[in-house]
Amino acid sequence: MTLRQLKGTKEFLPKEQLVREWIADTLKRVFKIYGFKPVETSILEFYDIAASKYAGGAEILKETYRLKDQGNRDLILRYELTFKLAKLIGMNPEIRMPFKRYEIGKVFRDGPVKTGRLREFTQCDVDVVGIKSQVANAELIALAFRVFQELGLNAYAQVNSRKLLFGILKEFGVDEDKFTDFALSLDKIEKVGKEAVVKELREKEFNEDVIVKVFSVLEEAGKFNGNTNKLDYFTNVLNNELAKEGISELKDLFKFLKDFNVSEVELTPNLARGLGYYTGTIFEFYLKDSKIKSSIAAGGTWDSMIQKFIGTKIEYPATGMAFGLDVIYEALKDSKINITNIPKIYIIPINTLKDSIKICEKIRSEGISCDIAYTKKLGKALNYANKEGIPYCLIVGEDELKKGKYKLKDMRSGDERFVSVEELISLSKKSP
Amino acid sequence: MTLRQLKGTKEFLPKEQLVREWIADTLKRVFKIYGFKPVETSILEFYDIAASKYAGGAEILKETYRLKDQGNRDLILRYELTFKLAKLIGMNPEIRMPFKRYEIGKVFRDGPVKTGRLREFTQCDVDVVGIKSQVANAELIALAFRVFQELGLNAYAQVNSRKLLFGILKEFGVDEDKFTDFALSLDKIEKVGKEAVVKELREKEFNEDVIVKVFSVLEEAGKFNGNTNKLDYFTNVLNNELAKEGISELKDLFKFLKDFNVSEVELTPNLARGLGYYTGTIFEFYLKDSKIKSSIAAGGTWDSMIQKFIGTKIEYPATGMAFGLDVIYEALKDSKINITNIPKIYIIPINTLKDSIKICEKIRSEGISCDIAYTKKLGKALNYANKEGIPYCLIVGEDELKKGKYKLKDMRSGDERFVSVEELISLSKKSP
Repeated sequence: MTLRQLKGTKEFLPKEQLVREWIADTLKRVFKIYGFKPVETSILEFYDIAASKYAGGAEILKETYRLKDQGNRDLILRYELTFKLAKLIGMNPEIRMPFKRYEIGKVFRDGPVKTGRLREFTQCDVDVVGIKSQVANAELIALAFRVFQELGLNAYAQVNSRKLLFGILKEFGVDEDKFTDFALSLDKIEKVGKEAVVKELREKEFNEDVIVKVFSVLEEAGKFNGNTNKLDYFTNVLNNELAKEGISELKDLFKFLKDFNVSEVELTPNLARGLGYYTGTIFEFYLKDSKIKSSIAAGGTWDSMIQKFIGTKIEYPATGMAFGLDVIYEALKDSKINITNIPKIYIIPINTLKDSIKICEKIRSEGISCDIAYTKKLGKALNYANKEGIPYCLIVGEDELKKGKYKLKDMRSGDERFVSVEELISLSKKSP
Repeated sequence: MTLRQLKGTKEFLPKEQLVREWIADTLKRVFKIYGFKPVETSILEFYDIAASKYAGGAEILKETYRLKDQGNRDLILRYELTFKLAKLIGMNPEIRMPFKRYEIGKVFRDGPVKTGRLREFTQCDVDVVGIKSQVANAELIALAFRVFQELGLNAYAQVNSRKLLFGILKEFGVDEDKFTDFALSLDKIEKVGKEAVVKELREKEFNEDVIVKVFSVLEEAGKFNGNTNKLDYFTNVLNNELAKEGISELKDLFKFLKDFNVSEVELTPNLARGLGYYTGTIFEFYLKDSKIKSSIAAGGTWDSMIQKFIGTKIEYPATGMAFGLDVIYEALKDSKINITNIPKIYIIPINTLKDSIKICEKIRSEGISCDIAYTKKLGKALNYANKEGIPYCLIVGEDELKKGKYKLKDMRSGDERFVSVEELISLSKKSP
């Protein structure tokens, strides 16, 4: 047996995991402040439920891990949390609407492994079901900006409406069943450039005249400054109901965003997003001035999926978003984040283990992370503290015990001073 | 497609999940105070690594979910976190000893489903690797008592040493390769009674004389009050090295437990624990005065497994324990626990959505969980708040806006009063 790591999976040592836990804790805290509550759904699921045509769809199903249990049941590992939310609502009719829930958990996709794309990874989803108003999108966008502020990240959002985007395509004669195909190419403009997108659209055999018209309207819109001016331009050039609905919803959204005091939002008419769920407003968050070019969070309105999945007459309007834990970690790992050291204080007993334990327990009872060099002598203990990045060492010898004052060594500056346990506790509560 | 829940899996709605998250957060906070750091290992693992004879062993392997990925790799879902820790150490030689780590995550066992036993469940493990002293056990036991205190649970611990237990068996002539088999029967005395255990031991074809002698020494020990007196008795009647080592280690343990100010610990010489890993001290925690009779946490010393699993000359003494999230939830669900309400305040706008959003965002910016009745009228909104258990409603009408004072309704008492936003914020920070 050779120890090795399975491709597409990762294991996180404390240095990385402390940051990941801090990110997840920040997400949970902000989710709760905004009135979202946690659920936990199972990773194991029946194949037929996950393969429902209203769940993730055929493409995602190709990447799904399948297995049989000892009862020969046909199972999968969940590939996302969205269809699990739909199932939860379907199985628990006592859930009251609006239902604001978050779930953070592992999902599995047996697909190609690229940079930042794993086969086993953590998804952080937050959704509100039962509110049919753009205020739900505005609230989620405000929530996301709060999260990024607390994480110390400088972000902006791109927004669009699938109704507007499809309305543009409709206006110039693209067939309805080709909307998604066309839109997925347009979505790549920023990434691969206009030329490559035009080439791809030609290869997909779209009419040259249509391609020219769509690009022309997108480019004209791009000349206007500000979201309102762009929307006014679209109002003038688009005459179909779908586009009008999209424009009206986006106007509502921008009005609500103002109420939420959110300004870093940019209408991006070619934004499409990958998933098939979305029915209206969509949005993606990116970092300013960062090496990370991929989106760090994204979401939108997905109004019809739950109803279709459950197979009911009841409508379940839904709006949600997902945060990428791994990409946020990548963005944060080089920045100076102020995470509490574990442990913060390392007690080094010199023939005083019994009393050092009592001192340590007293410090711990104040909620301060503290540890003891149980089996290491002074030199090795200091060396360990240094390498582990522990900020303070408290050296407890027999003389110090008599005086009630212990030598405190600041491992970063090298400074030494004598402190009582009470002084150490009050010091620790003040410094990071 | 019929919506249904897979046997042995559970999905948790907010009411339950809020408590489970609070338990997990309490565990993590206390783990960190005691100097333990988080890791995260993958759920997917190669079959041959999980099937190593020094991993979980043949019995647990029978209950393991197996699957193949699209590269035809032979995989499993992890069935515990212990062999994953051994692997992590084997693959990361830069990890410094002692290594104090915790991991909370899902594990999977395709075994019989009984009350409180699921096929997909959460394990909360905390282990220290690299300290060969009873102080490691004492510290973990102290940590567990701190956890239970913070959760408001009244617990006690049973402790034993496998060396003492096997020493008793050795003293009366049980073959070494039958130690575990004999001990697993003895472990059940409290559960099924002496008669049933004797019957089982006879069926296992142990010598009648040996059975009588083992029970006699256990019963004699039981007549002594206090752990020290019991150990003195064992010192007098047992003459083999293994027993002496066990007694000496337990004496050390009780001395350290005193330093940690831990007293609710009871030497239980027939305690064996199920797993094969344990090599010395073992312990289990139970609730006092509770319907829950199964253990809520358990652990001990497992000294040789990592070394054998990695296949190295380096010794990795290890001590650890696991908390049962589900059983702790069961113990807590009927008690009055003080978990913050999500949301705490529900704003009901009466034609004042724009200003209500501003008020809500102000309250949220103070870290208080607040929500808005975006689409519900007054009566329905109050009804929703009442059913959802939201403690406070703030009614924001146009008159109230002019005065800067809003009607605050305490949903539990029915009391109403007028408050400014600042008063509400300071009120919310004080009350739970």
